[in-house]
Amino acid sequence: GFAKLDHHRMLRSGFGEVVYCSGKSTEHLVKIFQSFNEKNINIMGTRASKEQYEAINALMPEAEYDEMSRIVKIMRNVPEQTGLIAVCTGGTSDIAVAEEAAQTAEFFGSRVMRVYDVGVAGIHRLLSKIEDINKANCIVAVAGMEGALPGVIAGMSHKPVIAVPTSIGYGANFNGLSSLLTMLNSCAEGIAVVNIDNGFGAGYMSTQINRLAVQ
Amino acid sequence: GFAKLDHHRMLRSGFGEVVYCSGKSTEHLVKIFQSFNEKNINIMGTRASKEQYEAINALMPEAEYDEMSRIVKIMRNVPEQTGLIAVCTGGTSDIAVAEEAAQTAEFFGSRVMRVYDVGVAGIHRLLSKIEDINKANCIVAVAGMEGALPGVIAGMSHKPVIAVPTSIGYGANFNGLSSLLTMLNSCAEGIAVVNIDNGFGAGYMSTQINRLAVQ
Amino acid sequence: GFAKLDHHRMLRSGFGEVVYCSGKSTEHLVKIFQSFNEKNINIMGTRASKEQYEAINALMPEAEYDEMSRIVKIMRNVPEQTGLIAVCTGGTSDIAVAEEAAQTAEFFGSRVMRVYDVGVAGIHRLLSKIEDINKANCIVAVAGMEGALPGVIAGMSHKPVIAVPTSIGYGANFNGLSSLLTMLNSCAEGIAVVNIDNGFGAGYMSTQINRLAVQ
Amino acid sequence: GFAKLDHHRMLRSGFGEVVYCSGKSTEHLVKIFQSFNEKNINIMGTRASKEQYEAINALMPEAEYDEMSRIVKIMRNVPEQTGLIAVCTGGTSDIAVAEEAAQTAEFFGSRVMRVYDVGVAGIHRLLSKIEDINKANCIVAVAGMEGALPGVIAGMSHKPVIAVPTSIGYGANFNGLSSLLTMLNSCAEGIAVVNIDNGFGAGYMSTQINRLAVQ
Amino acid sequence: GFAKLDHHRMLRSGFGEVVYCSGKSTEHLVKIFQSFNEKNINIMGTRASKEQYEAINALMPEAEYDEMSRIVKIMRNVPEQTGLIAVCTGGTSDIAVAEEAAQTAEFFGSRVMRVYDVGVAGIHRLLSKIEDINKANCIVAVAGMEGALPGVIAGMSHKPVIAVPTSIGYGANFNGLSSLLTMLNSCAEGIAVVNIDNGFGAGYMSTQINRLAVQ
Amino acid sequence: GFAKLDHHRMLRSGFGEVVYCSGKSTEHLVKIFQSFNEKNINIMGTRASKEQYEAINALMPEAEYDEMSRIVKIMRNVPEQTGLIAVCTGGTSDIAVAEEAAQTAEFFGSRVMRVYDVGVAGIHRLLSKIEDINKANCIVAVAGMEGALPGVIAGMSHKPVIAVPTSIGYGANFNGLSSLLTMLNSCAEGIAVVNIDNGFGAGYMSTQINRLAVQ
Amino acid sequence: GFAKLDHHRMLRSGFGEVVYCSGKSTEHLVKIFQSFNEKNINIMGTRASKEQYEAINALMPEAEYDEMSRIVKIMRNVPEQTGLIAVCTGGTSDIAVAEEAAQTAEFFGSRVMRVYDVGVAGIHRLLSKIEDINKANCIVAVAGMEGALPGVIAGMSHKPVIAVPTSIGYGANFNGLSSLLTMLNSCAEGIAVVNIDNGFGAGYMSTQINRLAVQ
Amino acid sequence: GFAKLDHHRMLRSGFGEVVYCSGKSTEHLVKIFQSFNEKNINIMGTRASKEQYEAINALMPEAEYDEMSRIVKIMRNVPEQTGLIAVCTGGTSDIAVAEEAAQTAEFFGSRVMRVYDVGVAGIHRLLSKIEDINKANCIVAVAGMEGALPGVIAGMSHKPVIAVPTSIGYGANFNGLSSLLTMLNSCAEGIAVVNIDNGFGAGYMSTQINRLAVQ
Ligand SMILES: Nc1ncnc2c1ncn2[C@@H]1O[C@H](COP(=O)(O)O)[C@@H](O)[C@H]1O
Ligand SMILES: Nc1ncnc2c1ncn2[C@@H]1O[C@H](COP(=O)(O)O)[C@@H](O)[C@H]1O
Ligand SMILES: Nc1ncnc2c1ncn2[C@@H]1O[C@H](COP(=O)(O)O)[C@@H](O)[C@H]1O
Ligand SMILES: Nc1ncnc2c1ncn2[C@@H]1O[C@H](COP(=O)(O)O)[C@@H](O)[C@H]1O
Ligand SMILES: [Mg+2]
Ligand SMILES: [Mg+2]
Ligand SMILES: [Mg+2]
Ligand SMILES: [Mg+2]
Ligand SMILES: [Mg+2]
Ligand SMILES: [Mg+2]
Ligand SMILES: [Mg+2]
Ligand SMILES: [Mg+2]
Repeated sequence: GFAKLDHHRMLRSGFGEVVYCSGKSTEHLVKIFQSFNEKNINIMGTRASKEQYEAINALMPEAEYDEMSRIVKIMRNVPEQTGLIAVCTGGTSDIAVAEEAAQTAEFFGSRVMRVYDVGVAGIHRLLSKIEDINKANCIVAVAGMEGALPGVIAGMSHKPVIAVPTSIGYGANFNGLSSLLTMLNSCAEGIAVVNIDNGFGAGYMSTQINRLAVQ
Repeated sequence: GFAKLDHHRMLRSGFGEVVYCSGKSTEHLVKIFQSFNEKNINIMGTRASKEQYEAINALMPEAEYDEMSRIVKIMRNVPEQTGLIAVCTGGTSDIAVAEEAAQTAEFFGSRVMRVYDVGVAGIHRLLSKIEDINKANCIVAVAGMEGALPGVIAGMSHKPVIAVPTSIGYGANFNGLSSLLTMLNSCAEGIAVVNIDNGFGAGYMSTQINRLAVQ
Repeated sequence: GFAKLDHHRMLRSGFGEVVYCSGKSTEHLVKIFQSFNEKNINIMGTRASKEQYEAINALMPEAEYDEMSRIVKIMRNVPEQTGLIAVCTGGTSDIAVAEEAAQTAEFFGSRVMRVYDVGVAGIHRLLSKIEDINKANCIVAVAGMEGALPGVIAGMSHKPVIAVPTSIGYGANFNGLSSLLTMLNSCAEGIAVVNIDNGFGAGYMSTQINRLAVQ
Repeated sequence: GFAKLDHHRMLRSGFGEVVYCSGKSTEHLVKIFQSFNEKNINIMGTRASKEQYEAINALMPEAEYDEMSRIVKIMRNVPEQTGLIAVCTGGTSDIAVAEEAAQTAEFFGSRVMRVYDVGVAGIHRLLSKIEDINKANCIVAVAGMEGALPGVIAGMSHKPVIAVPTSIGYGANFNGLSSLLTMLNSCAEGIAVVNIDNGFGAGYMSTQINRLAVQ
Repeated sequence: GFAKLDHHRMLRSGFGEVVYCSGKSTEHLVKIFQSFNEKNINIMGTRASKEQYEAINALMPEAEYDEMSRIVKIMRNVPEQTGLIAVCTGGTSDIAVAEEAAQTAEFFGSRVMRVYDVGVAGIHRLLSKIEDINKANCIVAVAGMEGALPGVIAGMSHKPVIAVPTSIGYGANFNGLSSLLTMLNSCAEGIAVVNIDNGFGAGYMSTQINRLAVQ
Repeated sequence: GFAKLDHHRMLRSGFGEVVYCSGKSTEHLVKIFQSFNEKNINIMGTRASKEQYEAINALMPEAEYDEMSRIVKIMRNVPEQTGLIAVCTGGTSDIAVAEEAAQTAEFFGSRVMRVYDVGVAGIHRLLSKIEDINKANCIVAVAGMEGALPGVIAGMSHKPVIAVPTSIGYGANFNGLSSLLTMLNSCAEGIAVVNIDNGFGAGYMSTQINRLAVQ
Repeated sequence: GFAKLDHHRMLRSGFGEVVYCSGKSTEHLVKIFQSFNEKNINIMGTRASKEQYEAINALMPEAEYDEMSRIVKIMRNVPEQTGLIAVCTGGTSDIAVAEEAAQTAEFFGSRVMRVYDVGVAGIHRLLSKIEDINKANCIVAVAGMEGALPGVIAGMSHKPVIAVPTSIGYGANFNGLSSLLTMLNSCAEGIAVVNIDNGFGAGYMSTQINRLAVQ
Repeated sequence: GFAKLDHHRMLRSGFGEVVYCSGKSTEHLVKIFQSFNEKNINIMGTRASKEQYEAINALMPEAEYDEMSRIVKIMRNVPEQTGLIAVCTGGTSDIAVAEEAAQTAEFFGSRVMRVYDVGVAGIHRLLSKIEDINKANCIVAVAGMEGALPGVIAGMSHKPVIAVPTSIGYGANFNGLSSLLTMLNSCAEGIAVVNIDNGFGAGYMSTQINRLAVQ
């Protein structure tokens, strides 16, 4: 049976299930999708390749794929979106990770405001948006290269900031290590960090926080 | 004037101000304390040495010092404590950092439940406490050595977990690097990480989350 | 002569020989397999590519290949399996490395119990299996990402635990470094660690321990 | 009560208890020793400073201290020593860690053979001892600097080898990192590694293996 | 003779000489100071301990010492100060390094504007000063912890920015590595980096640039 | 509108705009080029692939591509070249990065002298060129492998040196880390460093310095 | 002219020239080979791809290529081979690097004895060869994984040992870092280390030493 | 008896014995010195503290101590010095390590030429000495900070260069790591590297090479 699918990273809160597609065989992935689909449970796969999507789509034409975030999903019932989470990025290259965060948050019923390409190298763009950002219950700040964005936002906000370093960069960026360290060492208050490129983790945790606020 | 004191680790929300004492000259520190004290503002200093405390105490006898957390504070008005934050540690050596988190949260008006020495090497102790822990709005999980505690808690809770790696350990621990990496790579959902030994950061962010819940 | 084949990954205890296939030319590998096959000696190749297997199989149709573990072998006489080794994994992606361990142990005559996908992010699955696991003489615990599984098992068992970090993960996992450090820093007693992804090493050492018990 | 002392790192097998003294306050440590002493339970403290020992000794004159291994212990009943564990070192500077391993093994009832200063830079000394070493059920090999000893021993033995890197060395040794990596990458079979300077861990695990053999 | 003193790090441009005092014996240092003093050449020592200063001062009472920057100097003729260099810091703890930069620049005849404690965690302080900063020919930006200041300044200025990471911080700061990487990866234009805590290097290079502007 | 294009790598000083092409979709890139081209603004793209160039060229035949530097550009009006910047390399493999620097400097109106393949392993080649190099207002020194060139040049020049480490090398070069560290630790005066392979950054900053000199 | 060819990896001692082929364009490489060939000068290219060889061979059919060492060469006059250098490897996978060393030494007129696959995991193979090895003037010892071979040889020889770490290994080998550190930390006397996989460097330096002996 | 002293790092070539004093107890060290002294064997101790020397000197007044190199020795018969080794340093701070190398070489009968403070930041000093340096059979080049000296010397010499990185430096020097990497990546020919600060190793190996030349 599918008891095996009731595994450690699933959310049993009526919103649906999430699968991490990277490294899973297509055959195995299709079976997981079918099992939830048959039970009318929403299902979302992160880090899905186009090939994985196509195999799913061949059998379940209701499956949708977003190339930017690499999310494949089947929404059997769209949840109402409540509260507010702001998802911000430093550059346009960080949008893929930001979308993983934003769409994860939406999948679990959060309302999301996207504020992209407001990196600190042109701080006026961020300043013009900060009032809006502060309306959110929780802020997800995504940045690569030097990764300074989350710290600057945290310095201008009383809302909790989830910082997501990305692997965007080259040379002494060391695949995101530089951004990660920047965020961990931020001298602003109210900031915590997830793994490099872990949009899912940020989307999930910001949803937990958003729910506390909307209860 | 003291406009200069309006610096980046201060909270302008009626609870008082926080100063990072490490590396500050005693003379400078005493002046900062006096300035707030005169204005009847609560003030808390983190990473304070006993010498720093004694200099403060000589002029302001109402100053209290906790050797464990290395916090010195003057409470002109004790805030009501609302909501609930669980602060957990893996071992007894992590308590110093945990107390920095707990007392920071209390300084800003959060109610705190302490659950210490429940590390994963003897998981039954944690299992017997998990129901209580889950009553909190936010969980701070502090651990050194292998740093597995926050991930295990996150796997048993739907509440957001702030993970704090400590520098407790030796050899391949590399001053907390090992715990930090463990926490960043956790495969449980709902966990974000602050800097090694950054109890203050965890106490502050958990307070922000707790406030969203008690509003 | 084949004195040259008497190299360092071979066991001279009547069970057969093991070859590390990665990086060996197909031609060279086929010759090694033929030489043992002609002498009726069991032979097992680890980290074999499908191409390497096919070249071996073309000449020695009795060769078997397991895509998951990437082991190719020719069993001229199947050894009796004695004692008991438990091979556990945190996730499903760790199974490839676990199978290298399990099949190595079986090749050398150990009985193996497989306990897969019992990672600490959903600790109840592990708890329900721990009694069985403790029946083994030695436990091999395989985990990627944060690598907490071996430490948690060691905390619930008096049997020696061989920990195997895997390179499964991304970002701050740094190709298994994170899991490796977690395991080295475990505060549970009775745990020692082999190289990242070194299923063979764990299978071999657990067999040495299992033999001491069954003597 | 002392229920708190029944914590995660204690061995409930009739041999006694072990405490990690480093970082514990003298006052706290003395209380732990008294609690076990009153109950006639053997107790051993590792990484104890001379000051810690003296405080214990002042109240419990039966406490013994070994400056080399930094172990303080009170033996209420000396266990019979069974089986055999060989503890080897590369140099004389590694003996402190080796003694932590040896005395831990003895505390838990293992018989120990010491083979010190047989490092690979003068391989004849090791060769002349290897026959004796192979009589043990388990070998603990302790080495600093380049850390090659465990791999060389594993290549000459069918017994499991627990490798202990030490922090002895300078420059590119990076406090034991070099020895640790050497041991993890050993191409000999039958070797697993504990943390840098973790003599306790090696002594404990070798005891677990030795017990399987003597049952 | 003192031909030996005409070494590789001296400036032969009429302003005087600089000595790196750290690690030099007091006796050797006093001789170097005497040799220049006798020739009426300005001399400045960086990283000087109070003890070194006192030994120099005992023989050359005209020597001055600044505890903050740890600079000892004898000014036989004070150079006119031309052009303008802005020296900025993120926090107050970075001032020691900033002063090494500022006083080096002044020693070589540059006019210096100090803009301290304008870190990005409270960006309004920086915004209120940026117009002034932009009047300089070259900007030295000094920051520890996450090190974001130079990048933010570079984003608001067309003047070259010399970034100086400091070792101020803890945990994942790794003694300045975090700030260094942040600065190297800055996505703003017009920024180059010197070694951690190298105020001297920044003061010197900014002087070279300032001179090009004032010629 | 194109407000969005007003991003962080663009210079608003009448010379034109620069785009970082790596990771941008061809479609997005073509739109950016068209937008500036229509407005008669010079535009330069760095790290452009041949495919990206071809797509741009298909619509804007005036686009030029240099395979060595991977720069694509459309020059609507060629700026006068003033001042002088020397761009030097250690080896021939560093020329790709050097050309990114040189062409960036030229794009913004600097005159550039190229001095290639003068690495320190054959120091006579450098010695014969140093007089010429010193005529420049600013020196860009590009080197891989051990990265010693910028320090040696800085020792023979009073002009500011922008050091560019390249990722050329193997083994313990660690993708440019070795060169980067060499340059940061240079004991010569008047040297600051940009990111590994960041020719653009060096070209830009040297232009800022050159402009100060030619004003 | 070809003055430009007089670059840093060439030897001007009558034996011929060496070119590092990796990263050079085929066109450029062919020109270099032609220029020496026309002058009757021996030429050797290291790290040459098969494609590079084929392009050279098409125009200069006397060019020879060895796939193992990736050396392409044209020998216009074969030098007499004098003295003796022993080139040893730990495993068979290290032979590619060893051959680069051996053939470099031969190119420059050294006589070479090859002693391959004598790694320390089966020390008897090395012991049986050590007398022969000690007849050489200089020993090149090549090893990957744990890299213990050079230290063990140095302990049994009074001849200088050039240690060459290789990138053979996986996991905690970190592309040769482990072997490199082992060799640098060797506690045997008479050992110095070249870069990871730098067979050329070892072949060259051993030739310099061998020449001193045969003079 | 003192058979134990006949250990792995002793030279049995008539010149005497060397002991590594760091970490040895004074008592143990004095015994070692006495044992050789009684037998009229020269003995040299490296890394000796002043306290260790004084204890030795109290019993053996013929013992000499050099504070710079931290070498203590008793010369019962001074060997004739043959051949020639050049020992060079980049700065004056590197002299301590250089003297360990030079005095080791002299202890074993080599003639040594010292060429100190000729670092690449003032290359003319080196150029004026290079002809002399090239008269040596072997060159030891010692450097800290960026560590460029050995590579520059190797580029101007056909003699083998033993490179010694020192831990002199700060910040991104990482205790000598920067110099070590520079030397390993040198693009000059004829250079091999020993551990950070390992003057002894360089002195020993250069002696081995020098002996080959003077035979
Ligand atoms: N992109 C992601 N990064 C990290 N974790 C993820 C990601 N996507 C999904 N997950 C987690 O992985 C779980 C599914 O893992 P699996 O059982 O391997 O499919 C989900 O429930 C999430 O907790
Ligand atoms: N030297 C040591 N290194 C690592 N772990 C140790 C050491 N000594 C004792 N331990 C472990 O630490 C436990 C006691 O830890 P604690 O509760 O902090 O006293 C013991 O039961 C052992 O598991
Ligand atoms: N704080 C510093 N950091 C780095 N380099 C310095 C510093 N102070 C002085 N220097 C350089 O060191 C040279 C003097 O070095 P020394 O010959 O050792 O006294 C000066 O001319 C400067 O180039
Ligand atoms: N400064 C040093 N650095 C590295 N190795 C050394 C040093 N001094 C002596 N040695 C080596 O250490 C051996 C003595 O080591 P030990 O047996 O511990 O006294 C000598 O024979 C040398 O091989
Ligand atoms: Mg904030
Ligand atoms: Mg959870
Ligand atoms: Mg256990
Ligand atoms: Mg073995
Ligand atoms: Mg700018
Ligand atoms: Mg200069
Ligand atoms: Mg030797
Ligand atoms: Mg040379």
